[in-house]
Amino acid sequence: MPVSPRRSGTIHSDSPLVTPEELGLAVRNHGTPLEALRYSVTPIGMHYTLCHYDIPDVDPRRWSLEVEGRVRHRLVLSLEALQARPTMTLSVTLECAGNGRALLSPRPISQPWVLEAVGTAVWTGTPLWTLLGEAGILAGAIEVVFTGLDRGVRDGHEHAYAFSLPLGEALREDVILAHTMNGQPLPPQHGFPLRLVAPGWYGMVSVKWLTGITVVAEPFRGGEQEVYWIKQSEEDEGVPVTRMMVRSLMVPPGIPDFLTRRRFLAPGRHIVTGRVWSGHGAVRSVDVSVDGAKTWHPAELGAAESPVAWRPWSHVWLAEPGEYELCCRASDDSGHTQPITQNWNVRGMANNAVQRVWVSVVA
Amino acid sequence: MPVSPRRSGTIHSDSPLVTPEELGLAVRNHGTPLEALRYSVTPIGMHYTLCHYDIPDVDPRRWSLEVEGRVRHRLVLSLEALQARPTMTLSVTLECAGNGRALLSPRPISQPWVLEAVGTAVWTGTPLWTLLGEAGILAGAIEVVFTGLDRGVRDGHEHAYAFSLPLGEALREDVILAHTMNGQPLPPQHGFPLRLVAPGWYGMVSVKWLTGITVVAEPFRGGEQEVYWIKQSEEDEGVPVTRMMVRSLMVPPGIPDFLTRRRFLAPGRHIVTGRVWSGHGAVRSVDVSVDGAKTWHPAELGAAESPVAWRPWSHVWLAEPGEYELCCRASDDSGHTQPITQNWNVRGMANNAVQRVWVSVVA
Repeated sequence: MPVSPRRSGTIHSDSPLVTPEELGLAVRNHGTPLEALRYSVTPIGMHYTLCHYDIPDVDPRRWSLEVEGRVRHRLVLSLEALQARPTMTLSVTLECAGNGRALLSPRPISQPWVLEAVGTAVWTGTPLWTLLGEAGILAGAIEVVFTGLDRGVRDGHEHAYAFSLPLGEALREDVILAHTMNGQPLPPQHGFPLRLVAPGWYGMVSVKWLTGITVVAEPFRGGEQEVYWIKQSEEDEGVPVTRMMVRSLMVPPGIPDFLTRRRFLAPGRHIVTGRVWSGHGAVRSVDVSVDGAKTWHPAELGAAESPVAWRPWSHVWLAEPGEYELCCRASDDSGHTQPITQNWNVRGMANNAVQRVWVSVVA
Repeated sequence: MPVSPRRSGTIHSDSPLVTPEELGLAVRNHGTPLEALRYSVTPIGMHYTLCHYDIPDVDPRRWSLEVEGRVRHRLVLSLEALQARPTMTLSVTLECAGNGRALLSPRPISQPWVLEAVGTAVWTGTPLWTLLGEAGILAGAIEVVFTGLDRGVRDGHEHAYAFSLPLGEALREDVILAHTMNGQPLPPQHGFPLRLVAPGWYGMVSVKWLTGITVVAEPFRGGEQEVYWIKQSEEDEGVPVTRMMVRSLMVPPGIPDFLTRRRFLAPGRHIVTGRVWSGHGAVRSVDVSVDGAKTWHPAELGAAESPVAWRPWSHVWLAEPGEYELCCRASDDSGHTQPITQNWNVRGMANNAVQRVWVSVVA
């Protein structure tokens, strides 16, 4: 249906105050409370979720997955057929590309994530490459487009949510068509009955309520593809959002004030802990600061549950009474290190500046 | 530990814009997306949750529940002991007393709920009255205080979350010490390993991470008890927040715009659906308006899964092209009807004004 464009509004806000539209998104889409970084596998209901449109009501008996486009054999599979196929199970860390957006200045107007848009789940399903192999990819194919059942309007254009992967990325052995999350059928908000899980990439490509896989010979520009783009200005050609930048987060120590979430901690020996991940390479190091990123101390890295899951880290802090600004900063072996200050872009994508947690140590 | 009071700030905001502190709460605490009103039982992960402080990390082997105060026998129970007791299972609708707060003007500064802070789950556990009976309530007892393991600071005061019920309410047969939600162990964010579920009351009394039950002879004024109070001014003596006011909500029809959540719908016959509940009496009626509460049409009421769970409602709408403002309004047999305009109070509690959904019907 033709719809009028949304009311002309600001794309950015110079105000630290959040608009009612942003709040409307924040109360629908929830982050992972940072104390849940204690879990190597995020419990269902604590794992962040971003649903651009409404969560579809899917009848699994009527649902099917279609594989089409530049393939030798068009495939149509029922949920039962997919569940009967050999499965793989993998612990995967997913992060929203807009994580940290609400901390940018000026603030891009969209889902106003602070720092909670990351989680790790154990996904079970069919390796995508086996299905694409059965369909038979034809010459000229360059991308694979994933289409969900969720529909909505953006900038006046009605469409289904869709996103593409380059063919080489879609054929990686760790890309899953998942029907199971943490050993349970996908919850509605995580894509029931089937979703893509593309490890290493920001979450926008891991299309939920998946119903169509289309192999194409031209770069895909529909669905949400144009939204996830890193630009320094609206005129900038920019680059697409792809893999997760290296990032570390800490469990805020101590106890919070209800409103400000400022932390209070007793003096003594504390183990500051958190998680670290990167979609670009192996994590090399995490450093911790208690003085607002002036001086740094190396943290100890633990083992990941899989090559595409976050790693735990810890650091012993002998806290004396006073006021502190705790930070953590990670590097990976692709040469990236988290920036101390914001790496701003028009839509607030792939920004990974260091977290800051204010702590009062009081006897 | 002594802590300084939170920075002096406004208690209300005349601005429709939301402060960073409110956003910090909104990204932690999530509502039930309104399309999930389609489910009679809200799936785990979609059910609203408000955690005032951090979600505690509870080792169930070291956890225990203590029943003390004005009782003949102090009881200390392990989780195994509680799970071994006879259970009851009940579908219960819980709503946060602050639901709708972000729609008030001026807006009380706290968790900025729009309308999503309600859900229904199937809770299983021990009836509280049986445990209180075993402990043996002594003469003079007037209230039962429930204390959680969650700790934090509010207005400069460190404390554990705690809330009380009048003794008569605590002894109702439908009050549950729940260890199971929708057939699963409580998720961490819903109070693992044990929580209170007090049907009919706003959610603040259904204390999570429950560790203490204290029968007292004086009105309890600690924990969060003083926060949940309906006052017309800070000086007003006010009345405590208790049972849920009658409220109906609708599933927003059609599809949304990503940012504004304005709805778009094709012309034709549509069944508008929703849920309705009240903690004060049986629901008597739901009426629907498509012209911004000018004219009303009766909706059809369905059956509830239990006497303390919401009821479904539906209304057939023959939608012609145009712009509409949909509303729903319920009444209960205690004589309450949802107000058309806000019923403001200092902390934004128990406000139940009619929902408004803007819909463009376009061919």
